[in-house]
Amino acid sequence: MTRFAAIADLLKQDRPGFSLPQQLYVGEDAYHFDAEVMLKSVWLYACTVAHVKNPGDFYLFELGETSAIIVRGRDGEVRAFHNTCTHRGAKLCDARTGHVPRIMCPYHQWTFGLDGKLLAARNMPPEFEKSAYGLRPLALENVGGLIFVCFAENPPPIDRAKADIAEQIALYDLGRLKVAVQDDLIEPANWKLVMENNRECYHCDVSHPELLKSLSTYGFGKGLPEDGEADVVDDAKFDAMLEEQRQRWEELGFYRDLVEFPDGWWHRVARLPLAHGAVSQTLDGKVASQKLIWPHGEEPTSLSIWTQPNSWHHFCCDHVVTFSLVPLGPDKTLLRTSWLVHEDAVEGVDYDADNLAAVWRATNKQDSKLASLNHAGIRGDGYRQGMYSVEEKLVDAFKTFYVERGVAALAAQGA
Amino acid sequence: MTRFAAIADLLKQDRPGFSLPQQLYVGEDAYHFDAEVMLKSVWLYACTVAHVKNPGDFYLFELGETSAIIVRGRDGEVRAFHNTCTHRGAKLCDARTGHVPRIMCPYHQWTFGLDGKLLAARNMPPEFEKSAYGLRPLALENVGGLIFVCFAENPPPIDRAKADIAEQIALYDLGRLKVAVQDDLIEPANWKLVMENNRECYHCDVSHPELLKSLSTYGFGKGLPEDGEADVVDDAKFDAMLEEQRQRWEELGFYRDLVEFPDGWWHRVARLPLAHGAVSQTLDGKVASQKLIWPHGEEPTSLSIWTQPNSWHHFCCDHVVTFSLVPLGPDKTLLRTSWLVHEDAVEGVDYDADNLAAVWRATNKQDSKLASLNHAGIRGDGYRQGMYSVEEKLVDAFKTFYVERGVAALAAQGA
Amino acid sequence: MTRFAAIADLLKQDRPGFSLPQQLYVGEDAYHFDAEVMLKSVWLYACTVAHVKNPGDFYLFELGETSAIIVRGRDGEVRAFHNTCTHRGAKLCDARTGHVPRIMCPYHQWTFGLDGKLLAARNMPPEFEKSAYGLRPLALENVGGLIFVCFAENPPPIDRAKADIAEQIALYDLGRLKVAVQDDLIEPANWKLVMENNRECYHCDVSHPELLKSLSTYGFGKGLPEDGEADVVDDAKFDAMLEEQRQRWEELGFYRDLVEFPDGWWHRVARLPLAHGAVSQTLDGKVASQKLIWPHGEEPTSLSIWTQPNSWHHFCCDHVVTFSLVPLGPDKTLLRTSWLVHEDAVEGVDYDADNLAAVWRATNKQDSKLASLNHAGIRGDGYRQGMYSVEEKLVDAFKTFYVERGVAALAAQGA
Repeated sequence: MTRFAAIADLLKQDRPGFSLPQQLYVGEDAYHFDAEVMLKSVWLYACTVAHVKNPGDFYLFELGETSAIIVRGRDGEVRAFHNTCTHRGAKLCDARTGHVPRIMCPYHQWTFGLDGKLLAARNMPPEFEKSAYGLRPLALENVGGLIFVCFAENPPPIDRAKADIAEQIALYDLGRLKVAVQDDLIEPANWKLVMENNRECYHCDVSHPELLKSLSTYGFGKGLPEDGEADVVDDAKFDAMLEEQRQRWEELGFYRDLVEFPDGWWHRVARLPLAHGAVSQTLDGKVASQKLIWPHGEEPTSLSIWTQPNSWHHFCCDHVVTFSLVPLGPDKTLLRTSWLVHEDAVEGVDYDADNLAAVWRATNKQDSKLASLNHAGIRGDGYRQGMYSVEEKLVDAFKTFYVERGVAALAAQGA
Repeated sequence: MTRFAAIADLLKQDRPGFSLPQQLYVGEDAYHFDAEVMLKSVWLYACTVAHVKNPGDFYLFELGETSAIIVRGRDGEVRAFHNTCTHRGAKLCDARTGHVPRIMCPYHQWTFGLDGKLLAARNMPPEFEKSAYGLRPLALENVGGLIFVCFAENPPPIDRAKADIAEQIALYDLGRLKVAVQDDLIEPANWKLVMENNRECYHCDVSHPELLKSLSTYGFGKGLPEDGEADVVDDAKFDAMLEEQRQRWEELGFYRDLVEFPDGWWHRVARLPLAHGAVSQTLDGKVASQKLIWPHGEEPTSLSIWTQPNSWHHFCCDHVVTFSLVPLGPDKTLLRTSWLVHEDAVEGVDYDADNLAAVWRATNKQDSKLASLNHAGIRGDGYRQGMYSVEEKLVDAFKTFYVERGVAALAAQGA
Repeated sequence: MTRFAAIADLLKQDRPGFSLPQQLYVGEDAYHFDAEVMLKSVWLYACTVAHVKNPGDFYLFELGETSAIIVRGRDGEVRAFHNTCTHRGAKLCDARTGHVPRIMCPYHQWTFGLDGKLLAARNMPPEFEKSAYGLRPLALENVGGLIFVCFAENPPPIDRAKADIAEQIALYDLGRLKVAVQDDLIEPANWKLVMENNRECYHCDVSHPELLKSLSTYGFGKGLPEDGEADVVDDAKFDAMLEEQRQRWEELGFYRDLVEFPDGWWHRVARLPLAHGAVSQTLDGKVASQKLIWPHGEEPTSLSIWTQPNSWHHFCCDHVVTFSLVPLGPDKTLLRTSWLVHEDAVEGVDYDADNLAAVWRATNKQDSKLASLNHAGIRGDGYRQGMYSVEEKLVDAFKTFYVERGVAALAAQGA
């Protein structure tokens, strides 16, 4: 595929420990490569089962020019279909989310079942075979309640990520939760810069006062003590905090070892202590919702999951916050943040929506500004691939994943 | 012309009875091909003689990057010129419509006659020859009062379309009409999807309550009975309605047989009965203007004209509504709708402008939404060329015209 | 560099005395060529020393995708650096202008001195060498108080322009002035059309009533009498006006001969008489600021400087107005106008900001409209390279500079 020959050259300029070449961040071509090739070759986080709680509930996941309908069938199964009518191509579902008994095209009323079968089409010629005009499906995996989709015909493996993630989040039973708040933030930066920003807390001390009320930056980006790596960060305080809690967590039976991007894999699962006695990621450190979602009461800990290339998630005792990211353009990224609480929690009684969303709404806004400055500066002639600090090793991990999967996706196209 | 090599390949993928390949609808290249090559090789409907009623009246017709002035000369002739000064290229007329004694450039006051001759240019060097700097003309044809222009040096034939159309619309004498209302609607869809939407009523039953007050969908898109084709639509009711009226119309002398895109031609002219006793395309079925524009009183019929690739027109006993369409971008189309009434009709006395425009203003808005959903869905990876229904044969006719003229235009460029 | 092969062909189509080929004005490629190649091969006017009056004052100069910080050091020197952090590329200064003790990156707080040296970077790996990560400098020249920068590694000569300009503007000592008003106007036209508009007054009589209160169009664009060229303009009145003043100016010791784009050079410096007894470029012809900036009192004269390819400047006895222009897109140009007065002048006491800016604010707006019409007309198919009038010889000079430097810049790239 000669169209992306220049991208292949740029991917070769990758240097371990350094940021990417300029055009991979800001180029129009790189955006098209990412949206049409690289991101379509991998599993992407879309939403949770709580976003499509009942049969007929649908949720749109859109990447670049393409739109997918994630819908729960009458049999309870969650499936994904291309959001395009098989007649003349109209977009079937226009609303981002909703509930339908079946999927009817707004143009000429062709009607499909929740399983994608074409049920009705008026006045077609005799040679028309209804069975050949069902909705085109996409690969979908339910990972312990997190829904991942893949646009490729032959998706890459997902088994180990599925096992590692599902085992640890089972405790929070996503099926019993509901979406309490959802924010769409369009960041004026390349999606990879939004991801890189998420993968380090080198910037946190100055930029995120709200987040630091409950987050210990020592536990972020340097690995937990058992990974045995030397580290110039003074992490004695963090280690002590972790050790103090760890024994208690093991007794309670919910402690699991860190899983950090196992060789060739794309997930990190970490049980972390919260800072300053907080029991939830909130402004005051207290729970945001009175209906707890796990069985261990108010504990100063959260479980966090990061996946390449487009998501992160934090599980507290009272709520879950989950982030999914898609590029909209070379310098435009949609970050969708969902806050989930217990399905029985009542707004205004058990939780206040603004309080629930306060920490990450503020943090997202701060990160958006930083990512936009990052993008703006990289566009300049002064940019050179820069060296990562010791605290940015997970940025390097993300970048390396991007380069490796990009190279592989090009190779698969015979480029 | 290697620039459009990819377009040539796409045009070859056309299948009779199926919609076009994705990129011909949504691609940036296809837009450039359409605006710069295909649409410049054919006759385009611009406006009526009523839009440039008096000497010095001008009207801009703009396609892609280029702008044409349609202006009536002192001799009564309507002419078209490129709207670009021959000095340093400034746009001569900025307003969409207006009246001028002569055409003066706003930049350096070079002055041209209404016939395009350069009349005055200050301080030019001795070698300057004024006669070589007149305005560049465009081909223009007055088809019974409908103005068509062509950007090509050698326009295709227009004689048969001119004869068929002029003969049937003479009854409504466009020269005596005036423009009562004009709407510009920018539709977020490719222009071909706006056209396809116009060429079928498969979508009408659900989408167009206002239009269906006077339109019988049975007569649309399936051909009139005399075309002898089998049709799965149950059209008994329509046939009866037509037969009942037809005899009366023949006696009155204004009935003419259907002209439906004769071989190689690009026009359809149909005398149709209105539904539900309506005598005009209005919300209540009554005339919108008290000053009738034909000599046969209030009859439940309209004359409709469709031309490839960019217009349609409906002639009622009291008013004419005429539609001209140009692409503004891959997913942006300007639909200009003009409602014409008798030149002696007085607004507020003989007609109410909102009532006059109500049916098609609502219908245009509904169609715009459908076309935008069509465009959005085609952009997705799930799109495949889809099969037309029996009721979409005029969509197929439009699409075939597009493909044939596109292939011819490329061939003419040696591509 | 094959990317701009089409531009090379277009540059060859240049004809002396005629405007450029269409695509050089309106093409996307030409914009990229201009912003990335041609304009980066020459000296560009950025601002005055008054814009960075004190150590730590900075001012951003941005061209296309790239941003430069112009900053005065603790040693009083003005320097330019790429506005991109050497760590991960964030934009260092986001505000257009400001004052900083040192340059600190907002992302991870890397800190640079005003001389560009990296002072601090946390937690970098052992192999990191701080001295290799200073800010990347740009070429900068202080031309008698006018700051020019060049993005090229090897900037073209500037010595003669520097000498000619600095000698004549010394009288107005820019170091003692302050910026009283600054306007940013985004013109919807190609930057070359904005420049061409500035290089003739063929359009002034009809378009610029405010400017003509103090400007004699006779002295503009035809050369002063001593250049010995024949001219069809009736300039007797202007000649008389100049002669009358010239003797007086020579006695006062500030008269200098016209410098008009000496062979291969890019500057014009002209001492001109003001019209109608005006002593400043104001609506009423009176001074706008009571604190004069030169030693010769209120004289009916101004000193004007024009440079290729992006600036012009007018020095009156009481104020200076200076214009810098950069392209923002094919049809989008930023014109930044600064009005400078004596540093001791007090707003509301010695000058009224609106009165100071009135003439050129109105003139800029009028010119913006003309340039936008020029751009719009050139986009049309009707455009052909047009012949310049006798009054447009400086337009020709600008255009020729553009073509010659464009050809040279392409040659330097081996194109």
